[in-house]
Amino acid sequence: MSLTWPDQLEFELGELAPALADPVLNSMNFLNEIAGRYPGAISLAAGRPAEHTFDVGAIERHVQRFCRYLREERGWDEARVCRLLFQYGRTKGIITELIARNLELDEQLSVDHEAIVVTVGCQEAMYLVLRALRADPSDVLFTVAPTYVGLTGAARLAELPVWPVEGGADGIDLADLTSKLGQARSAGLRPRALYVMPDFANPSGLSMSLAHRRRLLEVAAGENLLLLEDNPYGLFPQELSDRQPTLKALDQRRQVVYLGSFAKSALPGARVGYLVADQVVRDRNGNAGLFADELAKVKSMLTVNTSPISQAVVAGKLLEHDGSLIPATAADRGVYRDNLRRVLAGLQRRFPDGAHGVRANAPAGGFFVVVTVPFPVDDALLERSAADYGVLWTPMHHFYDAGQAVNSLRLSCSVVTAEQIELGLDRLAALIHDRLEEAG
Amino acid sequence: MSLTWPDQLEFELGELAPALADPVLNSMNFLNEIAGRYPGAISLAAGRPAEHTFDVGAIERHVQRFCRYLREERGWDEARVCRLLFQYGRTKGIITELIARNLELDEQLSVDHEAIVVTVGCQEAMYLVLRALRADPSDVLFTVAPTYVGLTGAARLAELPVWPVEGGADGIDLADLTSKLGQARSAGLRPRALYVMPDFANPSGLSMSLAHRRRLLEVAAGENLLLLEDNPYGLFPQELSDRQPTLKALDQRRQVVYLGSFAKSALPGARVGYLVADQVVRDRNGNAGLFADELAKVKSMLTVNTSPISQAVVAGKLLEHDGSLIPATAADRGVYRDNLRRVLAGLQRRFPDGAHGVRANAPAGGFFVVVTVPFPVDDALLERSAADYGVLWTPMHHFYDAGQAVNSLRLSCSVVTAEQIELGLDRLAALIHDRLEEAG
Repeated sequence: MSLTWPDQLEFELGELAPALADPVLNSMNFLNEIAGRYPGAISLAAGRPAEHTFDVGAIERHVQRFCRYLREERGWDEARVCRLLFQYGRTKGIITELIARNLELDEQLSVDHEAIVVTVGCQEAMYLVLRALRADPSDVLFTVAPTYVGLTGAARLAELPVWPVEGGADGIDLADLTSKLGQARSAGLRPRALYVMPDFANPSGLSMSLAHRRRLLEVAAGENLLLLEDNPYGLFPQELSDRQPTLKALDQRRQVVYLGSFAKSALPGARVGYLVADQVVRDRNGNAGLFADELAKVKSMLTVNTSPISQAVVAGKLLEHDGSLIPATAADRGVYRDNLRRVLAGLQRRFPDGAHGVRANAPAGGFFVVVTVPFPVDDALLERSAADYGVLWTPMHHFYDAGQAVNSLRLSCSVVTAEQIELGLDRLAALIHDRLEEAG
Repeated sequence: MSLTWPDQLEFELGELAPALADPVLNSMNFLNEIAGRYPGAISLAAGRPAEHTFDVGAIERHVQRFCRYLREERGWDEARVCRLLFQYGRTKGIITELIARNLELDEQLSVDHEAIVVTVGCQEAMYLVLRALRADPSDVLFTVAPTYVGLTGAARLAELPVWPVEGGADGIDLADLTSKLGQARSAGLRPRALYVMPDFANPSGLSMSLAHRRRLLEVAAGENLLLLEDNPYGLFPQELSDRQPTLKALDQRRQVVYLGSFAKSALPGARVGYLVADQVVRDRNGNAGLFADELAKVKSMLTVNTSPISQAVVAGKLLEHDGSLIPATAADRGVYRDNLRRVLAGLQRRFPDGAHGVRANAPAGGFFVVVTVPFPVDDALLERSAADYGVLWTPMHHFYDAGQAVNSLRLSCSVVTAEQIELGLDRLAALIHDRLEEAG
């Protein structure tokens, strides 16, 4: 298709929202574009969930299971069932009660279902919260660096500046958090929230200990700081017995907005996530409502409501497993655990005890491993890796907001076979050795 | 649930995004809340589509039809089909080629499918465009007054001020448009776009003639003004032979972004809409891309991608009818036509030739009729109508942005039976007569 015509309306990119020219919004495009150009390369870059459970027939089975629940457990007639699935519906969603029950069972988290808003994936949940919190240009958001690109991108769209806080080995450096909050307030800025992923974070792979979660909640209480807890990987520890309570389950002060996803625990294609926002919001007359209701107002102007058909698919999967996704994800958990162990063992074998200055971290679960190397890892190196070595991974600088050089890369191990892992690590090791030799 | 606790984090509404306290975002809540409080009242307020075609079995049939298309017409294997429906996917959508074919068949509109972005309903399409166009505080949006509340609400969230343009009998008063554009520019503001619904507009019911569409395109060309054409009701004229070409079909200058919806033509529950944005965007180096690709970047940070399961349901319905929704909507069209005629005839019978100063307009299709009365129609009158007369309708002031008194109300005739229409009009007539008597 030709892209030049005489006398046509055109835009300059600079005339559009500044976020569109921002590196953060172009990061994902760049990484997808490289993956598209080298389809034969082994991908240790993609953070997608495993595909072994995918089955078209499950859509019908799940929808029917949900309809049976409506008819038999709720006593609905067929017209009402049809209307629920096909018509416009409740902005906060039609499966909030089932989600509340799932949180009770899988996270020992008791929440009123009225505090839940079902969203178009967790991404919409993030945007709703950031958009609602952004009241004026003095508002700022805090995140642990490195941070999930989707969060930073949503903050860009909401025009909410992001202040990074050191992650460190504990998942967040609380002294740095306190210091940065003080700096922001001294500069006349208003810290609105801190975004954290306490379990097997993307991209760092790190988790917070129970003691550190408690300390974080204490600091947040002292600072009256809202915490945004994102938990897409919580069901995927290496050992189920190692699971930690979420911040929201420990929260005594309604200090935490919980961001939930069914993309990894049920299926990505439904695009169903949710948020729990039980904070009280008072209007000028002192009338109290829930933060969830304010977020639903934002949603009504963004997407109106999440597809009830998609919600029915997720609800059917929940019902099929009596509301809990822990047994339902046993096979996935096995795949992720075996892959993670294979990647960690494979790195240890190829670079024993930090040989050549190459070290991996040791995530207790999740999809990601971070490898630190003794040279900056830039996009040119990724391009070379794809073209000359046939392996894809993600330069960690994409997860830092400052544009600085970063000496590390992220490996994903969620959608690869054992053979792909070994071959991918061989290729990565060859690249690293060649790069080290060139440096002399 | 109690809403007061000691030592809990709370917000003041005034600390959140100003849009949340805006009457526009609370309009829909208020109207839904009234409907919820008077479930026994006849609703001439709801703009939802008719429900006679709803059938849970259709979900499976449509999904299977789409899968068959992928296997048989595209030659895909089962793993690829499963991955498309279940995995994360293309931000611009997986059914853009089928939508392009539908536009060719039903609207004689030829567009490259790369210029299409599938969205979570038309609401997301609106927000994507407004968010991308809002670069700085000098940007303003023009709309025809009265305007769909969802558009005004999306503009509030995007912090894009809305300048109303007179509608008049032609659908838009072009002299007023030119004058307002001049005023805005003189004030140092930058008009970004004009939002219009040329076919059976919500809420006015009005349509633009072919000649007036051409004049609007000429004016827009002269002003280098982007037009946002929203077309949810285009398939529902009283007579198919009366259909007019869309602005986008007449557009020679890529002057029009087309906003499409399947909520009324296929089913609301899929939450699938789309936009066509074939404008060229040039970056600082002169590289050209499509506006659709910039809008997809915004979408990647809002909802990532529209549920492929929802897209499959819509695609299956399109494929079942060889790509055209004109025959597929014949029964709906009959319902809407009969209801519209019955409402118009019923009003004429009860208030012949403007008796008592009560007049209806004469829409050529769509879901809505506007009734003008000789007194201001406020929310208190609606409340009284619901409580004492048992009929719901929509005060037109909700569709004007200025908070002024408005002497008219909107009647919807899309989800009512003939009996409900007659009884609803009897009740409305009783309310009007009583109100007139009180005024003396």
